[in-house]
Amino acid sequence: MSRAYLDWNATAPLRAEARAAMIAAMDLGGNPSSVHAEGRKAKALVERARGQVADLVGCQPRDVIFTSGATEAAGLALPDGAVMHGGAIEHDAVGAWIDRTGGALLDVDGDGRLTGTVGGAPLADHIAGGVVALQAANSETGVMQDTLALAQQLWALQRDVFVLVDAVQAIGKSGFTMDRSGADFILVSAHKFGGPKGIGALIAKPGIDITPRIPGGGQEMGRRSGTENIIGIAGFGAAAEAARRDIQDGIWARVEKLRNILDITIAAASSDTIFVGKSAHRLPNTTCFATPGWKGETQVMQMDLAGFAISAGSACSSGKVRASKVLTAMGYDEGIASSAIRVSLGRDTTEEDVLRFAEAWDKQRKKQRARAA
Amino acid sequence: MSRAYLDWNATAPLRAEARAAMIAAMDLGGNPSSVHAEGRKAKALVERARGQVADLVGCQPRDVIFTSGATEAAGLALPDGAVMHGGAIEHDAVGAWIDRTGGALLDVDGDGRLTGTVGGAPLADHIAGGVVALQAANSETGVMQDTLALAQQLWALQRDVFVLVDAVQAIGKSGFTMDRSGADFILVSAHKFGGPKGIGALIAKPGIDITPRIPGGGQEMGRRSGTENIIGIAGFGAAAEAARRDIQDGIWARVEKLRNILDITIAAASSDTIFVGKSAHRLPNTTCFATPGWKGETQVMQMDLAGFAISAGSACSSGKVRASKVLTAMGYDEGIASSAIRVSLGRDTTEEDVLRFAEAWDKQRKKQRARAA
Repeated sequence: MSRAYLDWNATAPLRAEARAAMIAAMDLGGNPSSVHAEGRKAKALVERARGQVADLVGCQPRDVIFTSGATEAAGLALPDGAVMHGGAIEHDAVGAWIDRTGGALLDVDGDGRLTGTVGGAPLADHIAGGVVALQAANSETGVMQDTLALAQQLWALQRDVFVLVDAVQAIGKSGFTMDRSGADFILVSAHKFGGPKGIGALIAKPGIDITPRIPGGGQEMGRRSGTENIIGIAGFGAAAEAARRDIQDGIWARVEKLRNILDITIAAASSDTIFVGKSAHRLPNTTCFATPGWKGETQVMQMDLAGFAISAGSACSSGKVRASKVLTAMGYDEGIASSAIRVSLGRDTTEEDVLRFAEAWDKQRKKQRARAA
Repeated sequence: MSRAYLDWNATAPLRAEARAAMIAAMDLGGNPSSVHAEGRKAKALVERARGQVADLVGCQPRDVIFTSGATEAAGLALPDGAVMHGGAIEHDAVGAWIDRTGGALLDVDGDGRLTGTVGGAPLADHIAGGVVALQAANSETGVMQDTLALAQQLWALQRDVFVLVDAVQAIGKSGFTMDRSGADFILVSAHKFGGPKGIGALIAKPGIDITPRIPGGGQEMGRRSGTENIIGIAGFGAAAEAARRDIQDGIWARVEKLRNILDITIAAASSDTIFVGKSAHRLPNTTCFATPGWKGETQVMQMDLAGFAISAGSACSSGKVRASKVLTAMGYDEGIASSAIRVSLGRDTTEEDVLRFAEAWDKQRKKQRARAA
């Protein structure tokens, strides 16, 4: 029996367009900083990809700063000495900076939506400047924020605040674009939409000064040094172009239908299963549900043995035995938060995958209940 | 007429072993942090490559911290708030940190060797702590340092000093290994020995605390976050293994012979050409020579048109019209420093390439002289 990969939010399989572009880039031997023909060809490849990424994101090519991924990009958005604030549900790549700089944690409601408060108090009491991170879509729950409305609240404070939108999960899976997001910066990661791992970008609105966190040879217009990952960049660009086409072709409506079939099938089988963030606007491919008394980690392992790749919490924090901080921020208790799993679909997912998963999951659930009884 | 690529110090062409490993890695869809089968396979690939890199470098696998390249690795070796000192001939990836932190610039002699002084004064007058960067081999001249002897001078000061060796050009082209280098940290870059661009490592001696400059999901044992560039890491590992075999097979003796043929042929043709660092111990593949009155940048363009890729200065600073700071640090005046080129050979270079280059170069030189007359 073939396996079904239902963990696309952790990482999406490399898509054919990216693979082909990467293999083609392998034959370009030059360093993009070299002035000879080999160097100029490598440079042209980087610039082509920059345009492809800009088209997906909705920005100008020069706003794209290639980095080793969104995690690196998060730090690049934060000037030295500045404070990062952000939602309590931010990914660790952003959360680590909020922690380090002692920034404010913005509240979320029971559906995972930012409420525009900090510890119940207005933003104005806590945000005096710095960078405010507003996640476009949550990796664990798929819940999407209205980042523009939140940005408008911040602008109303008339303080020196930059808005950073972690768009890692939203880009390529939704109609999210920078120009309608209120963002000064956005974070993008190639591998979440079929590009390779280890390449991403910070997108910075024109006119914002960037202090490089990686200084050196002055690549990326002095904003991020280091010889460019040209094979990765080629894959990033090709994946971005393909992802944009997919969005135009409406493939996510089909994926959403499958996700909804999954939700309905699971709900019909297990009446005590809680669907997290279900009344919020969610990514079309993601569902997160908790089945009290059945540990998420256990579910992941049991489903892995049964031939399905899913996750409990974000991939980065998997393996660490702890409840999802996203779910606890939403007000769920430890018991529920630690019994949640995330199933995230992709363009290759079929209805059969989803139905087979639901059947296998319910079989395990019944076994689990029998053991617990 | 086919082109000859003689700019291996800027970047080496991707070698077949790396290419094959990267293509194989493209089929591994998982995130190394995921606990399911797909994730575990990706994790195993990363750990295999870590061992291959460790074997080349002469360290333990757990000492290898994968980064997006040596430029990023340079910063990771420097604790926040500490000062970086280093040779006046360091690459910009290191030089930028010396600049930023106001560290001391160590003198070099006319052959590009560190003299163990700062502005003519003993190290003890200038080095009170921090990180001291000692380049193993210079990218522009190929001149190698006895980093162990210099480290011993630093140890004799009995100050709280860490030694960082930029081994980017030495690793894979020489017998350089960490265990005989005196280094606490070394910088490695995959693309200098046939791996892909955009992946490298900081090697840290066991027991040294690393404060991550890229915090987040806690990858690389908490020392460097971000989803791993698994395709790049696979290529890095395979290239490291192949480079180690090449060294054992003695291929660099053959390359050195070609470099010496080039030096002799150029010297015979042009008596006023100056060979930089020739009396020092040099990398086997590198030669740097200045022909007064003939700009290095012009030579690079003329040779590019004639079918040869070479460089003037390091790739990163190419395109910027300025004399090599490496050569000026060695005491050459602007006129000579700006008339130098670097020719760097690789394992695929043939005697015919070298002789054709020398012939074409001399033809251009004669034209240049006729124009100048």
